[in-house]
Amino acid sequence: MPAPSDFLQFVDQNADAFIQRLAEAVAIPSISCEVPRRPDVVKMAHWLDGQLKALGVETQLRDLGTHVMDGVELGIPPAVLGRIGNDPKKKTVLLYGHFDVQPASKSDGWNTDPFTLTIHPTNGQLIGRGSSDDKGPVLGWLNVLQYHHQNKKELPVNLRMCFEGMEETGSEGLDDLVVKEGAKGGWFDGVDCVCISDNYWLNTRTPALTYGLRGIAYYKVNVSGPTRDLHSGVFGRMVHEPMTDLIQIMSKLVDTTGQILVPGVDDMVSVASEEEKSLYEQLDYSIADVEESVGAPITLSDDKTTVLMGRMRSPSLSLHGIEGAFYGSGGKTVIPANVTGKFSIRLVPPQTPENVNPLVVSYIESEFAKLKTKNKLSVEAMHGGRPWIADHKHWNFEAAKRATEAVYGRSPDLTREGGSIPVTLTFAETLGVNVLLLPMGRGDDGAHSTNEKLDRSNFIEGTKLLGTYLYELAQ
Amino acid sequence: MPAPSDFLQFVDQNADAFIQRLAEAVAIPSISCEVPRRPDVVKMAHWLDGQLKALGVETQLRDLGTHVMDGVELGIPPAVLGRIGNDPKKKTVLLYGHFDVQPASKSDGWNTDPFTLTIHPTNGQLIGRGSSDDKGPVLGWLNVLQYHHQNKKELPVNLRMCFEGMEETGSEGLDDLVVKEGAKGGWFDGVDCVCISDNYWLNTRTPALTYGLRGIAYYKVNVSGPTRDLHSGVFGRMVHEPMTDLIQIMSKLVDTTGQILVPGVDDMVSVASEEEKSLYEQLDYSIADVEESVGAPITLSDDKTTVLMGRMRSPSLSLHGIEGAFYGSGGKTVIPANVTGKFSIRLVPPQTPENVNPLVVSYIESEFAKLKTKNKLSVEAMHGGRPWIADHKHWNFEAAKRATEAVYGRSPDLTREGGSIPVTLTFAETLGVNVLLLPMGRGDDGAHSTNEKLDRSNFIEGTKLLGTYLYELAQ
Ligand SMILES: [Zn+2]
Ligand SMILES: [Zn+2]
Ligand SMILES: [Zn+2]
Ligand SMILES: [Zn+2]
Repeated sequence: MPAPSDFLQFVDQNADAFIQRLAEAVAIPSISCEVPRRPDVVKMAHWLDGQLKALGVETQLRDLGTHVMDGVELGIPPAVLGRIGNDPKKKTVLLYGHFDVQPASKSDGWNTDPFTLTIHPTNGQLIGRGSSDDKGPVLGWLNVLQYHHQNKKELPVNLRMCFEGMEETGSEGLDDLVVKEGAKGGWFDGVDCVCISDNYWLNTRTPALTYGLRGIAYYKVNVSGPTRDLHSGVFGRMVHEPMTDLIQIMSKLVDTTGQILVPGVDDMVSVASEEEKSLYEQLDYSIADVEESVGAPITLSDDKTTVLMGRMRSPSLSLHGIEGAFYGSGGKTVIPANVTGKFSIRLVPPQTPENVNPLVVSYIESEFAKLKTKNKLSVEAMHGGRPWIADHKHWNFEAAKRATEAVYGRSPDLTREGGSIPVTLTFAETLGVNVLLLPMGRGDDGAHSTNEKLDRSNFIEGTKLLGTYLYELAQ
Repeated sequence: MPAPSDFLQFVDQNADAFIQRLAEAVAIPSISCEVPRRPDVVKMAHWLDGQLKALGVETQLRDLGTHVMDGVELGIPPAVLGRIGNDPKKKTVLLYGHFDVQPASKSDGWNTDPFTLTIHPTNGQLIGRGSSDDKGPVLGWLNVLQYHHQNKKELPVNLRMCFEGMEETGSEGLDDLVVKEGAKGGWFDGVDCVCISDNYWLNTRTPALTYGLRGIAYYKVNVSGPTRDLHSGVFGRMVHEPMTDLIQIMSKLVDTTGQILVPGVDDMVSVASEEEKSLYEQLDYSIADVEESVGAPITLSDDKTTVLMGRMRSPSLSLHGIEGAFYGSGGKTVIPANVTGKFSIRLVPPQTPENVNPLVVSYIESEFAKLKTKNKLSVEAMHGGRPWIADHKHWNFEAAKRATEAVYGRSPDLTREGGSIPVTLTFAETLGVNVLLLPMGRGDDGAHSTNEKLDRSNFIEGTKLLGTYLYELAQ
């Protein structure tokens, strides 16, 4: 059924207050991968819990135990579970989002303080870390709840919520929670479908529904030799330098065409049929879109379909950086003693961390042996997540298509995404129900990057979309 | 002539006060290559000037103008010139040292605060940034001056002093100063020889005199593409990643045997004759020494002579790090937009920055072209200095040999050093006199590294050596 028209009006009338609430959320630097910011992730959990309670949602903060990061045993921030409605005649929808964010500091190149939501003076974009990934979408649900709570309207479906604070750090602890709560009598018992808002439109124009995600396998390769950093004048050409060895290894992982050089990794993936290729040809997308989003003409190919398939149905390997080497400006003449290269591989079916990790580790070990260095190597698979694909003709997707048409006046692009949200697969496999990815932000939002933003219209129309989707589910 | 015996006693009696003065100097974080620390380098110049004045030295602070670092125009810290004695019957000796230091922060892996001189509780080592490079040696001269000033003793030679605050950042401005003050009527007019204490013994046992230094050419290689950092999930395998390109370039500079891969660079250097090789065979040195100094069995060869020649008569290329890439702990899934690799080449005769730079730049440009990437490259030669060799049979060296025998009871090793002190060559060429390097510290002091130290005995006996050297010059 269509959403009530006063819901749509309510959203427009309360837009400024919604943005104010987003500013409050962005101000909490809930960076899950930095040890000193961990308390802020916990603070963010409590903030969200308070908001949900105030909107009539029954909540629980779930302790997820501890994990070890950077050699420190840390408490995992609690998951925030929510529940409202228990009508057996209604569908029960599970909402998922995350309230942790990627690291950000002004010195990375932000034009504004990343933890102060800044409204762009001319285009109205909402700029701040987490605005689009993933605080904006999570707060979209708060906006929908506020309409129903404030106006004493019954929701068209029963809602279950699962908000976590570790998505950017491998969703530690969440799999166990989903398994436990998915069992009979658990918090997610009786869920009919899942909706996740944690991704982006393919471009800046066309709303999208996403039915596939790449997985990820993140690695660190450590090379160590001397017990401390050395002076390159004193020791240069006397000893094996760990940086020389590490750079050799890193240079053998991926080539400049994007091909993964670890034997067997690219080979796991089937070649696309002509029919499958045609799906990518239909998407509203051009080389100019990616050039606009990245700000430069640097696509690996000049063919739109090849570029889209690179992201949607191919694995990719990115070199992220080196821990322990000189990273400042200026010219420090150091031989770093202990350096750790960081890289990750985005996975597509049938790849999994389990079948890719051994290929990566044994390849690096054998390439390192060829170097004939006296330094020491260790390779570690850090967090990982499997890729995922869903049936995009399911009623869950059909409701989202109708909602998109109602709010935006057009059909959504049906996409597979390049990013990974490992919990998607856990929901699909554990609960045995259809999972929909319903993005709020645009392709140029800059999640994980500097100057992350969410367009005002994506936040406001996106809130309407989330609400309308619930009514369309109730049809 | 031998040094007076009460000088030697004075040094022993005042050892604790000398160490206290070194602690004062170390407490000033005079890091010349970091923009925010520049005022501390200036503060250090004033501190040193005050010390010299109090010891009866006529001084001048010389403004050296400005330079551009990291895009900022900065004042160069003043050089401190000193003068005491003008007796035409005495030799006139120019002393050189530097009061700036390398970067250091506790998070790099220091066991103690780098800017608090810490006396090791069991072995008495003086631990702190600059203790050995080069505040300890500079303060050795203050100790010698204090004996003469406090006891109203005439110095056996006339002294001229030149202390700079930019040695770790290419000695900006100093060449012009030396040329100007070396001219008739200048501060260095009439200098008969130069003594520089800014290097190290070959090992931890045997004092050394040094007659050669490698030069240096420092480079940055920038690769840029997108206008901001990208999410590897969203853009992985769609675009050319700057890190992929940069790592390819960096992997083509040096191999794991230490060989420099830039064509023509290693080839410039002559092969050692059997006679020259025998000089290296005589040095008090073993593979175990370098293993002890670096803490691991990682020498490029198991042959002592090969390893020594690697440092003393071969160029070397070290990869220092990458600016702009992810360098933290944890697992950030970023595609960095703009990355700058840093590396340097240590030079030996006949190499100079002028004849090596074009080889490096054109090689990198041609290797980059082979990558067929759409990203952009820029290569920049940063600071550089030519290599240097002196006549080690000159009376300046003979005086230092006798002083070493008097203080330490043994003949010094005659070495060529792997590091670079560009001003050495300027003194030699501009003043046309013999230049001696008279090291104070040991081979394991960890200059430019974490936990830099100077052994207490090297500071105290080293002070005796400096004073005795002046008396031996007066013979
Ligand atoms: Zn996210
Ligand atoms: Zn994210
Ligand atoms: Zn030095
Ligand atoms: Zn130095």
